[in-house]
Amino acid sequence: MNKNNISEFSIIKRISAKFPQYKDTIIKGIGDDAAVIKINKNKYLLYTCDAQVSGEHFLEKYSSPYQIGRKAAAVNLSDIAAMGGIPKYLLVSLFLPKNTTNTFIDELYSGLTEECKKYNVIIVGGNISKSNQFIIDIFLIGEISPKNLLLRSGAKIGDVVVVTGTLGDSAKGLELLKKNKNNYLSQEKQSISKYHLPIPRVEEGMILAESGMVNSMIDISDGLSSDLGHICDENKVGVNVFLEKLPVSKGVKKIIALNGGEDYELCFTTSFRNVKHLLEILKKKTGTNITIVGEILPSKEGRWFIDENGKKMKLIPRGWDHLI
Amino acid sequence: MNKNNISEFSIIKRISAKFPQYKDTIIKGIGDDAAVIKINKNKYLLYTCDAQVSGEHFLEKYSSPYQIGRKAAAVNLSDIAAMGGIPKYLLVSLFLPKNTTNTFIDELYSGLTEECKKYNVIIVGGNISKSNQFIIDIFLIGEISPKNLLLRSGAKIGDVVVVTGTLGDSAKGLELLKKNKNNYLSQEKQSISKYHLPIPRVEEGMILAESGMVNSMIDISDGLSSDLGHICDENKVGVNVFLEKLPVSKGVKKIIALNGGEDYELCFTTSFRNVKHLLEILKKKTGTNITIVGEILPSKEGRWFIDENGKKMKLIPRGWDHLI
Repeated sequence: MNKNNISEFSIIKRISAKFPQYKDTIIKGIGDDAAVIKINKNKYLLYTCDAQVSGEHFLEKYSSPYQIGRKAAAVNLSDIAAMGGIPKYLLVSLFLPKNTTNTFIDELYSGLTEECKKYNVIIVGGNISKSNQFIIDIFLIGEISPKNLLLRSGAKIGDVVVVTGTLGDSAKGLELLKKNKNNYLSQEKQSISKYHLPIPRVEEGMILAESGMVNSMIDISDGLSSDLGHICDENKVGVNVFLEKLPVSKGVKKIIALNGGEDYELCFTTSFRNVKHLLEILKKKTGTNITIVGEILPSKEGRWFIDENGKKMKLIPRGWDHLI
Repeated sequence: MNKNNISEFSIIKRISAKFPQYKDTIIKGIGDDAAVIKINKNKYLLYTCDAQVSGEHFLEKYSSPYQIGRKAAAVNLSDIAAMGGIPKYLLVSLFLPKNTTNTFIDELYSGLTEECKKYNVIIVGGNISKSNQFIIDIFLIGEISPKNLLLRSGAKIGDVVVVTGTLGDSAKGLELLKKNKNNYLSQEKQSISKYHLPIPRVEEGMILAESGMVNSMIDISDGLSSDLGHICDENKVGVNVFLEKLPVSKGVKKIIALNGGEDYELCFTTSFRNVKHLLEILKKKTGTNITIVGEILPSKEGRWFIDENGKKMKLIPRGWDHLI
């Protein structure tokens, strides 16, 4: 990165500095998975936006319009899930190259609407512009009861770090797609499917939020090493992550699970004593597993991961900064 | 337009058909300047999104990053103004080519934040992606008291059609810029300024909404001929527009005022008897003029404009459909 280049996080920091969050209705502005606006004492609204750019987030030779439509909704649903919120309304901004066909649009919308309907989300508006490159940008509105709100902040020293599902499948799936094989093993197909059609943990997020037991939460969109970095930054704490604990599917390397992006699993912190109960209710209500992968430390102890040989290594965000 | 091409309005129609507006909290979904969601009996929220695409909505050789930032906010503010609403919160989604400089971003944000501050709008979130082409996509959230809400629907046969300010300046400004002159006359500079920095009629929209006298309203973003077409479609009515009545700045042709886009003035319908009062309060509170330019007819009488020689011509949307 040279001085003329820009990183997503440095830009976000500069913008935040210009907009002090002074209004008492703004519970959380820039810097979490979604903005949080107070409507009344019983209701907050959540606002988030995220885009899929052709050639950056996906390649049209690997992803069908249907998959792109579903994924575009899913990555935004994941941001609302990360707050513990209920997704409600969606606006879709399309940027279409001149040669875009009606078939492409119909399949894209078929994916988008299918994903929305799963979570009772209604498309209420949008915009269409001409462009060189296909982009779908989504604005998602959710709501939450104030007592359930989970932020990146709130992690306590001594908390365990817990993740839902398995990590690294999406990165593995993309790696497999790049091999352009004619046939994939069934396990490989699952990784590819997770890359194309990540499952936002909306119900899991709501259950965790309602439990009252979770201290902080984020979704793993940029890779665990990056997203845990955000938790550490926000809470001014350190962390130990145990590589061997990372839950992976067969054939997925632990280091990919640590750094690979686009898992759209949830990462949260809680007291160790709560984990058994949370595991039970999540398993029972959603079938989703959770796994302890690390612990929150005082800031001065730093950020580390312990590799499979017990060696302590610096935890550096190696996940996906879209601009690096 | 061939069968493989797509028009913004045909796409919007197809999407609307897939999402029946069945929820009682959705006062207005797809198809107005903003979506309208009921919060409680005293408050509706307004959601809109609109983008500026480099090479489509502006050329970087004509527009500075500061101007692009201000205009990106202004075009969205105009959508909230068209409902009579109060703009509140903004999310900004940036698509940045690899060589984007910090200076570009700083100037863009300087324009964006300046425009926001004028209307007490707070930036609460956003997203950044890499792309081939610079794009700024904005999501704007507004609010309104239900009794003040103005929609495209509501126009009554016999209503007069009224517009704020002058029309055609922005299209004239762009035409002038394309001449690449070294010097422009003072009047020409005003047209160019209106192209770069349109003034959203936020205060005017609120005053009109609060008057209780306006039946329907839209902002003139695609050109009067197009936007009046939306009013006619929505209300199943016809219209007469009188070309000679169109308010223009010196040097702007009436036909440009009819068809040129990006004026971001308001167009509304009301009973003739209200116009004098509305003119007085708008003049007094904002300094903005309003002008009667036409009348709403029964659908079977069609859509017409009367040219400067008194000749009746078909009113065809010639404004800007971003995909044609």
